[in-house]
Amino acid sequence: MPEFLYGRWPVLEALRANRRKFEQLLLLETAEERGPLVEIAGAAETRGVPVHRVPRRIIDDLAKGANHQGVVLRCGGYPFASLQTLLETSMHRQEKNFFLALDLLQDPQNVGSLLRIADAVGIHGLLLQERRGVTVTPAVVSASSGAVEHLAVAQVTNLVTALKELKSNDVWIVGVDLGPNIPPMDRTDLNMNICLVLGGEGDGMRRLVRDTCDLLVTLPMRGHVGSLNVATAGAIALYAAWQARGWQGWAFGGK
Amino acid sequence: MPEFLYGRWPVLEALRANRRKFEQLLLLETAEERGPLVEIAGAAETRGVPVHRVPRRIIDDLAKGANHQGVVLRCGGYPFASLQTLLETSMHRQEKNFFLALDLLQDPQNVGSLLRIADAVGIHGLLLQERRGVTVTPAVVSASSGAVEHLAVAQVTNLVTALKELKSNDVWIVGVDLGPNIPPMDRTDLNMNICLVLGGEGDGMRRLVRDTCDLLVTLPMRGHVGSLNVATAGAIALYAAWQARGWQGWAFGGK
Repeated sequence: MPEFLYGRWPVLEALRANRRKFEQLLLLETAEERGPLVEIAGAAETRGVPVHRVPRRIIDDLAKGANHQGVVLRCGGYPFASLQTLLETSMHRQEKNFFLALDLLQDPQNVGSLLRIADAVGIHGLLLQERRGVTVTPAVVSASSGAVEHLAVAQVTNLVTALKELKSNDVWIVGVDLGPNIPPMDRTDLNMNICLVLGGEGDGMRRLVRDTCDLLVTLPMRGHVGSLNVATAGAIALYAAWQARGWQGWAFGGK
Repeated sequence: MPEFLYGRWPVLEALRANRRKFEQLLLLETAEERGPLVEIAGAAETRGVPVHRVPRRIIDDLAKGANHQGVVLRCGGYPFASLQTLLETSMHRQEKNFFLALDLLQDPQNVGSLLRIADAVGIHGLLLQERRGVTVTPAVVSASSGAVEHLAVAQVTNLVTALKELKSNDVWIVGVDLGPNIPPMDRTDLNMNICLVLGGEGDGMRRLVRDTCDLLVTLPMRGHVGSLNVATAGAIALYAAWQARGWQGWAFGGK
């Protein structure tokens, strides 16, 4: 079944990443071809994707009322990766494993936002469970500004089983939890083979997932209002982990 | 002119903080009094605030269509603090100054989200410019989950002048910038008297504000998609700063 990606950045990043099967690029008939639209049309041409100018109601309909910015790409589904590919990505980069697992998040905005940060810190791969949580839908692609098109995402049948498989490959499973009596992130050495795990919006990690973790780390808080949004907590944890790894792969100062 | 705060947490935190002049608490006539609503009604009673049950259209109208959860509080404007109060807050807490300045942010959601994180890390005070940027509106109170009701926020006429006044009080002005050739956050000692500065959504800090900074720090990025949302970047910077300060004021391990 075809998917309809929408929005300028998501569509441009999908074309740039060139990992899906592209069928048609639909542009609003009244849109002026300038700025990002020129780049999008150019990328489509390079990939041999037919471009059609269509009336607004068609684009509105395909984007299901979302903010499409006059651009819709009809294409194949998201190309999920295997766990093996994730492990090979780390080997290929010659870095210690740096993965992120999301345990049944429900809000596409949160998932997209986390994928964008995961891209920014250069995570090697992500794990999502196939059912009961958000997966990589066009809404998630948009919320990630298209970043997910460049990422290796494994959609697994059972998250606990997948985490155990990572464990058997010498990856430490590190749960990010906001409960009491958990040491803060910087008291744990995150410069190891790790898979960070974030729990869902309501109740956090499921018990079995939590029990599968080798370590738990927390984000300290001392304010009047408890709890942080999971996308915010995840962003902080991902950056703290990358900082612990010495900003590996970042170009500052000729490093 | 009265303000109308809406939503359960924002209204409850406003009542708990007890810093505004409260006029009336309006509850949806059909709402069952249980859970947070019991706490809200109780807090109103303690403060001697009259409680009225009203039809939905009145509440919808006062909350201007926002998600009010059946609760509206009619009250006086936000009690801004002076720069002097901010400096005294640090003295009172016996900590090095820990401030955050927002340079003309435009999105209430971003500002609210940053205020919530600022509360979580125990920031001593915030600076906002009076004109041309978002200030503490009911939408911001809601986006902060009410956290701003507990914070000291100075609304200044001119941000550059205010930052210079902080400088003359031995506060280092630290701009968070995403440009190239700027050292990452952890190469600068943030365990000093500091005021972090975040720029607006489009163009970042204004030139004069940037020039007023003593130091610039950046968030490394190595992904395919450039740039981070300002609320995300700010959350990461605030946590990195608090981490550099040894999670001061956090209770883990009896510290």
